[in-house]
Amino acid sequence: MALKVALLGCGVVGSQVVRLLHEQADDLAARIGAPLELAGVAVRRLGRRRDAEVDPALLTTDAEALVTRDDIDIVIEVIGGIEPARALILAALNSGKSVVTANKALLAEDGATVHAAARAGNADLYFEAAVAGAIPLVRPLRESLAGDHVHRVLGIVNGTTNYILDKMDSTGASFSDALGEAQALGYAEADPTADVEGFDAAAKAAILAGIAFHSRVTAADVHREGITEITAADVASAKAMGYVIKLLAICARSEDGRSFGVRVHPAMIPRTHPLAGVREAYNAVFVEAQSAGRLMFYGAGAGGAPTASAVLGDIVAVARNVLAGTRGSEESTYADLTVHPMGETVTRYHVSLDVADKPGVLARVADMFAKQDVSIQTVRQEGHGADAQLVLVTHRASDAALSATIEGLRELDIVRDVVSVMRVEGEDTP
Amino acid sequence: MALKVALLGCGVVGSQVVRLLHEQADDLAARIGAPLELAGVAVRRLGRRRDAEVDPALLTTDAEALVTRDDIDIVIEVIGGIEPARALILAALNSGKSVVTANKALLAEDGATVHAAARAGNADLYFEAAVAGAIPLVRPLRESLAGDHVHRVLGIVNGTTNYILDKMDSTGASFSDALGEAQALGYAEADPTADVEGFDAAAKAAILAGIAFHSRVTAADVHREGITEITAADVASAKAMGYVIKLLAICARSEDGRSFGVRVHPAMIPRTHPLAGVREAYNAVFVEAQSAGRLMFYGAGAGGAPTASAVLGDIVAVARNVLAGTRGSEESTYADLTVHPMGETVTRYHVSLDVADKPGVLARVADMFAKQDVSIQTVRQEGHGADAQLVLVTHRASDAALSATIEGLRELDIVRDVVSVMRVEGEDTP
Repeated sequence: MALKVALLGCGVVGSQVVRLLHEQADDLAARIGAPLELAGVAVRRLGRRRDAEVDPALLTTDAEALVTRDDIDIVIEVIGGIEPARALILAALNSGKSVVTANKALLAEDGATVHAAARAGNADLYFEAAVAGAIPLVRPLRESLAGDHVHRVLGIVNGTTNYILDKMDSTGASFSDALGEAQALGYAEADPTADVEGFDAAAKAAILAGIAFHSRVTAADVHREGITEITAADVASAKAMGYVIKLLAICARSEDGRSFGVRVHPAMIPRTHPLAGVREAYNAVFVEAQSAGRLMFYGAGAGGAPTASAVLGDIVAVARNVLAGTRGSEESTYADLTVHPMGETVTRYHVSLDVADKPGVLARVADMFAKQDVSIQTVRQEGHGADAQLVLVTHRASDAALSATIEGLRELDIVRDVVSVMRVEGEDTP
Repeated sequence: MALKVALLGCGVVGSQVVRLLHEQADDLAARIGAPLELAGVAVRRLGRRRDAEVDPALLTTDAEALVTRDDIDIVIEVIGGIEPARALILAALNSGKSVVTANKALLAEDGATVHAAARAGNADLYFEAAVAGAIPLVRPLRESLAGDHVHRVLGIVNGTTNYILDKMDSTGASFSDALGEAQALGYAEADPTADVEGFDAAAKAAILAGIAFHSRVTAADVHREGITEITAADVASAKAMGYVIKLLAICARSEDGRSFGVRVHPAMIPRTHPLAGVREAYNAVFVEAQSAGRLMFYGAGAGGAPTASAVLGDIVAVARNVLAGTRGSEESTYADLTVHPMGETVTRYHVSLDVADKPGVLARVADMFAKQDVSIQTVRQEGHGADAQLVLVTHRASDAALSATIEGLRELDIVRDVVSVMRVEGEDTP
C-alpha cells in the first residue's frame, strides 16, 4: 500500500522534490518499507511552465481541498511565507496528516501555533529544510545532542550575504557592486531585503536557538543588523588585521546559564577560524556543547536540489513513523529560558574613530572607555593630521556598556566621527 | 516510572556516561518524558579506582546476569572489542532490551549477527558513538540523507594518526618522534597498532560504507594501509607541492553505481581542501551526495566526554522509543551492492623515483606508464647525479594499472629505487 503525498508549491524546491520522488522511487520505497505516491500538487496557476515534469492531472489550485483529502498521508509545504502556508499546514495537522515543511518564516513567527497543532493532531512536523538547506542541523541538534548541554550555536546561515561579503573580501568590491553581481548570478533576489537586512538569518537563528535551548523563540526575540552599511574600507581594515567580516547568527547562553541571547549581525572573525574559510554561498554552523565540544556542520545552505534533499530525508522519517503508527520527537520547550536583551550580550568590539591630531586625544578616548568599564586590548593610530584614525579593540564587555561608550565618544569634540563599530567573534570559547 | 539502564564497562567513556546520567538527570528526564535510572554497572574488577563516583551497590562483575535482568530496559555497552561484548549485546537484544553501543570493532566484524538479533528481539541497536566520537554522522547518514543518493564519504576518522601526521607536517618530526609525543600526551596507546596501522579507521570506514550504500560491509572488505612508513621526507615533499598527507577513509561508488570501494590509506590532499585544515586529534568527514552536494561534519573524534555525548544522544532516542513502544530505523542493506577490489579503485598518484642521471631516462619511465595506460599529468626532476629524483603525478588511473606500472619501473635498470607511491585525493568530485 503506497503512502500518499500532497505537495504544496511547485517552484524551485517543489520541482526538485517532484523529480526526486520520481527518480529515487525504488530507493525510497526500500528505505521506507512502502512506496510513496505523489497524489496531488497545489499550485497558484495551472498553466505555468515548471522545471519538473508533473502529471497535469495531479495539479490543482485548490490547496485547501488537497490537504484535507482523506487519502493523503503526508503534506509537504514548500510555498514559504506566512499565509496561506500557515492555514494549509494547520488544516493538514488538524486532520491528523503529518507535515514536512521548509518554511523558516512561519516557524520563526508562529512556531507555537504550528507545533501545538501537530501535538493536537497527533501528527509529525518535520522541518530540516528550514535551516541551512541540505546541512543536517535540526536533527543533530534535536537528537544527536539530546543528551548534551549546548552552550552556543554560531554560524553562517545565509548564503546570499556570505556570497556578497566573500566577494567584497576577495575583490575589494563595494557592497552595491557585490550585491549586483550576486543578483546577476541568481544568488540574490531582485528585492534583496530579506537577505541583506538579516531577516532570513534571524528566522533561522530563532529556530536554532529554540531547539538548542529547549525554549520558545520567535523572530522578534532576535537582535538583527544587516550588512548594507559594510563598506569596502571596513572589509579592507579587517583584512589588514587578519580578520574577515561575516554575517553571523549567534545563539549563546549567558554565563549563569539562565538566559540566552539570539543575534544576527556582521562581525569580524579571525582568518584562522574555520568559519573564515566558508566561501561563496556556502553555509556552516558551529555548535559548542559541554561534552561534545566544538562541532561544525558545513554545506549548501540553499538551492532547489540541496533543500529538496533535506525535505526528502524528512519525508522518509515521517513515512516510517506513519507506517509504524508512531511520531517523531515533538517541540521541546521545557527549559523555558528567558531571552536576554542585546545590552546584556558580552563580546569584543573593534572601533574606528576619526580623531583630531592633537596631544592628549588617546588619553581622553581611553578615559571614555574606562568610564563604562570597557577594557581596551589594543589601540593603533593610523594616518596623521586630518586623516588621523584611532583603531581600538576591546576586551569582552557588555553591549550596553559599549553603546554608552560610543555615545560618549560622539560627544567628545576631539572625535570627528565614529567610523565603524564592529563586534569581534570566534576568538573565545564559552 | 523510571527507565532502567545497565552500563557495561566503566572506563574512560563509561565513567563519563555515569557522570552525565547524574549531572543531566533533570534535562534527560524532561527530554525523554521519564527519568533514567542507572540500575547496574558491570565491571571487570570491583576494587578499581574510577573517574566517576559510582554507587558501589550498583557494581557487579556478573555482566551476563545484569543484561538479562527483568527490570533493565536499556543496555549501554562501552567495553569494546569482540568478546565478551558480542555475547552480552546478543543476550540483551535476545531478551528484548535495546542496546546503545560505541563498539566499532564488533559492528565492523560481525554487524550482521548483532543487527539480526536486534530485529529478532524487536529492540533498538544505536551506535552513533562508534564512528567519529561526538560528531553526528551515523544519524545524518541514516536519516537526514535517507532521501538522497550518496556518492562518496571521505574523511579523517582517526584522531591519533591525524595528531601524528599534523605534528610531522608542522614540525618536520619523524614518524617515531611524532608517535612518541602522541603517546606522551595520551593521544596514542602504548601499543599503537590499531591506530597507526589503520585498523580503527578501517572499522569505521566499514560502518560508514554500509550505511551510505545500504549494503553489508565488514572490516575484511576494507583495503587498509597504515602510516608507519610515512617519512619526514614524504611530508616535506608533499608540503613543497602544496599538499598535506592525511590518513583518509574513503567509501566511494564506482562510476556505474553498481559497486563501491572502501579503503583506508595515507593520501596527499591539497592544502586548500577543507580536510587539510583539520588539526591535532580532530576528525572531519566529507559526504558527497547527489542532491545535497558536499557536506562536511567536524569535531572531536574520541575522548571520554565527546564519546559519552554521542552515547547519551542515543540513549535519549532509544528511551523515547521504549516509551512509545516503537523502534528506530533498523539496518538497511537492501541495495546489496558489491565491494569491488582495490585494483578497480580509480584515483591519482604521486610517485617519486630515484633514477640514474642519464639521457633517455624520462622517455623510458614515461613509456612504462604509457604501457599501462596511466597518463602523466606533471613530471619534475629534482637533484642531479647520484641524487637525481623524478617526481611524477598521474591523471586518474586504476590502482591495478598503477601497481603494474610500479612493478615494471622496479625492473628498469635506470630506476635505482621507487622512493614513494602516494595516492592524491580531494581534487575531484565524482
